Amino acid sequence: MLKMIKVKSVKREELINVTSEIKKYIAKIDLNHGKITLFVPHTTAAVTINENADPDVPHDIIFGLGKIAPNVSAYHHAEGNSDAHIKSTLVGCSQDILVENGQMVLGTWQGIFFCEFDGPRTRKLYIYSSEER
Amino acid sequence: MLKMIKVKSVKREELINVTSEIKKYIAKIDLNHGKITLFVPHTTAAVTINENADPDVPHDIIFGLGKIAPNVSAYHHAEGNSDAHIKSTLVGCSQDILVENGQMVLGTWQGIFFCEFDGPRTRKLYIYSSEER
Amino acid sequence: MLKMIKVKSVKREELINVTSEIKKYIAKIDLNHGKITLFVPHTTAAVTINENADPDVPHDIIFGLGKIAPNVSAYHHAEGNSDAHIKSTLVGCSQDILVENGQMVLGTWQGIFFCEFDGPRTRKLYIYSSEER
Repeated sequence: MLKMIKVKSVKREELINVTSEIKKYIAKIDLNHGKITLFVPHTTAAVTINENADPDVPHDIIFGLGKIAPNVSAYHHAEGNSDAHIKSTLVGCSQDILVENGQMVLGTWQGIFFCEFDGPRTRKLYIYSSEER
Repeated sequence: MLKMIKVKSVKREELINVTSEIKKYIAKIDLNHGKITLFVPHTTAAVTINENADPDVPHDIIFGLGKIAPNVSAYHHAEGNSDAHIKSTLVGCSQDILVENGQMVLGTWQGIFFCEFDGPRTRKLYIYSSEER
Repeated sequence: MLKMIKVKSVKREELINVTSEIKKYIAKIDLNHGKITLFVPHTTAAVTINENADPDVPHDIIFGLGKIAPNVSAYHHAEGNSDAHIKSTLVGCSQDILVENGQMVLGTWQGIFFCEFDGPRTRKLYIYSSEER
């Protein structure tokens, strides 16, 4: 089953917690054991798993990525968002999530974040599972 | 089904568009709904999804990665390609692609790129699907 | 089948070769053709595939990541390990491994490494396969 959800960013760069949306999908397809795949169909966004507890962690990830791929004028691409393209490739546009006893197999501190690197925009996030049982 | 395709790079660093090869594989195995996995069996190469339209984007990704993991002499590995190993780990050697109605679920601007970081070489790219239907 | 293995790090940052553990899992579930997924349930650790032969390569990857996401005081997160969170997102917490004829589809030089970025600790690594045959 393939489902698309919309994710709305309000800033240029933002980590948006989508953990509860993924939880709802798993409940809806009644997946007990298996795996789901998240896929971001954008080239200036990504998906990651990181700390869900302290909001300073998403802040520091955005700050750190800004140091790693700064938004400078040395790039060729005329749209001025090459930093966002590089961040998308570094973080990646897909993520697997394991499911056991109807629950996501996540560590205590883990949450799932849609990564906006060139917002604000309304974005798409695909959720897929081949295993509905 | 596991298939291997050859990818030929002509430069040390190069993003090679393999989208049409993946499309052909999906048609050949007649996959209607499901997922395929790409896997790069090399430690100085990777696979990513990014913008397919403006060739300046692949250029800027290579340029940006060169700033992130520069080819300097501070590394220990004697082969002089530690930058390529680091880029391989940053970008990643596998990629999931979703398929719906016989078509890859890709955004408008997305293409699939084999990332050469220590060419020129002839490389391998594996394509796998457990779901042939 | 979902299995959890423990990985013990002895340094703050360390790439720990887990290739033989994954090999044992594949033999144990008697997987002939298919795919397994590795998942790290931590936000300051990751999993990657890179060179298994020269120990200077894991050394240089840790060195390079330290340049990319330095452990500086500019971060907000009070625990002082934001560099480790950033590295976790850059490298990624999951990895697919293809299996053919009972063997992992890995290149000559590839090994699988658990990446510790905030040790020493005892960590968990999940191994999953939906395909037992």
